Amino acid sequence: MKGDFFAVKRIEEVWRLMEDLPPVGVEEVPLEGASGRVLAEDLIADEDLPAFARAAMDGYAVRASDTFGASEGAPAFLRVVGEVRMGEAPEREVGPGEAMRIPTGGMLPEGADGVVMIEHTKVLGEEIEVFRPISPLENVIREGEDIKRGEEVLLEGRRLRPQDLAAAASLGKRYLKVFRHPTVGIISTGDEIVPVEQKPFPGQVREVNRYTIWGIAQRAGAKPLFLGLVRDEKEALMGKLREGLPQCDMILISGGSSVGTRDITLEAIGSLPEAQILVHGVAISPGKPTIFALAGGKPIWGLPGHPTSCMVVMWVLVFPSIRRIGGERNGDPFPFRLTGRVMRNVPSPPGREDYVRVKLERRGEGLLVHPLFGKSGTISSMVEADGLMRIEAEREGVSEGEEVEVWPFL
Amino acid sequence: MKGDFFAVKRIEEVWRLMEDLPPVGVEEVPLEGASGRVLAEDLIADEDLPAFARAAMDGYAVRASDTFGASEGAPAFLRVVGEVRMGEAPEREVGPGEAMRIPTGGMLPEGADGVVMIEHTKVLGEEIEVFRPISPLENVIREGEDIKRGEEVLLEGRRLRPQDLAAAASLGKRYLKVFRHPTVGIISTGDEIVPVEQKPFPGQVREVNRYTIWGIAQRAGAKPLFLGLVRDEKEALMGKLREGLPQCDMILISGGSSVGTRDITLEAIGSLPEAQILVHGVAISPGKPTIFALAGGKPIWGLPGHPTSCMVVMWVLVFPSIRRIGGERNGDPFPFRLTGRVMRNVPSPPGREDYVRVKLERRGEGLLVHPLFGKSGTISSMVEADGLMRIEAEREGVSEGEEVEVWPFL
Repeated sequence: MKGDFFAVKRIEEVWRLMEDLPPVGVEEVPLEGASGRVLAEDLIADEDLPAFARAAMDGYAVRASDTFGASEGAPAFLRVVGEVRMGEAPEREVGPGEAMRIPTGGMLPEGADGVVMIEHTKVLGEEIEVFRPISPLENVIREGEDIKRGEEVLLEGRRLRPQDLAAAASLGKRYLKVFRHPTVGIISTGDEIVPVEQKPFPGQVREVNRYTIWGIAQRAGAKPLFLGLVRDEKEALMGKLREGLPQCDMILISGGSSVGTRDITLEAIGSLPEAQILVHGVAISPGKPTIFALAGGKPIWGLPGHPTSCMVVMWVLVFPSIRRIGGERNGDPFPFRLTGRVMRNVPSPPGREDYVRVKLERRGEGLLVHPLFGKSGTISSMVEADGLMRIEAEREGVSEGEEVEVWPFL
Repeated sequence: MKGDFFAVKRIEEVWRLMEDLPPVGVEEVPLEGASGRVLAEDLIADEDLPAFARAAMDGYAVRASDTFGASEGAPAFLRVVGEVRMGEAPEREVGPGEAMRIPTGGMLPEGADGVVMIEHTKVLGEEIEVFRPISPLENVIREGEDIKRGEEVLLEGRRLRPQDLAAAASLGKRYLKVFRHPTVGIISTGDEIVPVEQKPFPGQVREVNRYTIWGIAQRAGAKPLFLGLVRDEKEALMGKLREGLPQCDMILISGGSSVGTRDITLEAIGSLPEAQILVHGVAISPGKPTIFALAGGKPIWGLPGHPTSCMVVMWVLVFPSIRRIGGERNGDPFPFRLTGRVMRNVPSPPGREDYVRVKLERRGEGLLVHPLFGKSGTISSMVEADGLMRIEAEREGVSEGEEVEVWPFL
């Protein structure tokens, strides 16, 4: 099972492979815990919203026909027969020639079919003068006008935004079914890697990818779980994989950066029961040596060891795959995209999709995109960058002044 | 203390007022807990990164001068004297006419000043042929080339991204000082409001704003705390405010929608010790009747009761204010902005900044912006919208086809 048997895949193919990943299980959470979670049920309205006709303005509930023809010079005179109180059903009907004071949101009394704005009236003892006509249903939100019984309000696979919770609340949902957070195991490998709290000896470096991976996995909705740091030995990695797999929905292996270690990762994954290597090599830069596999149906990613390559692969491939197993149904692997004007030429060979770290500068209405260069693996460029400029495989680079697509870091 | 004493303020003025809000306190978290948090210290490198010169490619560590003039026809011959192992200091120096095998990331041996890529060499027994010259420092990452000792790597007030954690890890920081999550209290008011689990009687509606507020506050980095639902009575609201203030860094009052209740909110806030009403009315639509006050230095917002107005004020005003007290130092109240082409005319009176709910459609390179209309307060439009189109106060609306700015929902 060598990498040479596999053709490097285009990133679109890898995104497509992810679409087949089944989602994790479901749990029920109280409404206030559901923001940012992915809905695991369809929310269908089982009642009309509003449940009753409501005033959209402060004013008087009237019969619209009583105001027809009213003007400044010839106002309509209506008798005020009461007041609608917030949160209560009106005490009586509105008959012909009558009006009831009503606040915004108040329940429209029987008989009334519109609301005259307070600004278009004048109180004269027990009567009001109305200076403008209204048409039927004017300044009224009708029963069911907002949401109708039977309507699909929120669908399974939607990542819930704060205001979506308001919709659920309006329909009386105190709890929602959501997909649970996928547990994503992280294994660091590399003979040269030491834990962050340890002072490296000459030739050693601290473990950094673990933290990039942890943060991005979390940002994608996962509960990360650190499985450990192992040396570049097949047996050690296999042990960690077998130990981690039952506890995890996905495993991410942060590889060492030398050539040999990539084979170790591939062999260790290949030795798992029901292992399928789906991808070994993606036509992107950085990030080409990425591995994507399944073991017993659970996705396993082998990530490049270079810190910047690891970061790019996490954002452009692993992030959408976590969202996918987290139940999100959104064809777009990266929904936030900006466009801006690139400030210098960046060459890119055709057939390879490039993700270039860029700094963004807002200038009036426009966005200036400054590519950051630096040798592969510099951490300072990751800190300086605001996002990734995408150069699609068809293009031979971008030229200064061209419009480009940027995926801002979330 | 009536609202009439206050002039309606422009939104920029309100944003400016927020800049004076002091941040909440500081706590220390382990590195993996710091993603998305706001750094409360300056991170200065106390060592060079890398700590030693490293190979940027797989190949041979050599003296560059030994390769000068090398070509396919006339290769340079070098004697292989060993191999650098990952994570270990090289066993010996590289002398004139010598080469050592080195993996990417390996420590450059003394004497060598460059790395010949493996692709440009051929092994001949104990020797290699080198077909291309390298210049000094080629394919080498020098000591301190990434980050230099004394360099400011991450500054206080930065919201930490996953890859920022990698930078901290590379410098051996196992813990970081971050601002704690601001505790944001939520009070719902309104005679017509019933808790979500209760079946509303005619004239009543369920509490919805509480959940929008909860979710957006959380999204801004807060720990929300629900203080309770009170009727539109000054004493009841005052009681909740006095009870909540000591436990909270900020309080949000979701107001009833009728005119009278706004005065109650204002009076209740005004009665608190050291109360200062800073804003009563903002020149935005929706959201004009917003109140912004301080009590003992803690911010209090009075929010409009209409669900859509409440949502808009939460995103455009409260969200940046929470980020501010959460320690974030970023002049831009809303850093994610898209531009697109609006698909119909939307009028807007000059002097008022409008935030129109829009649906976004990606079409090729461009973004189409579809304004959603509907009566104030419909919840379905909040669910349908992808963001808010901003029409600045100077503009008299936007015309179909014009470039507009959209703040996508996060």
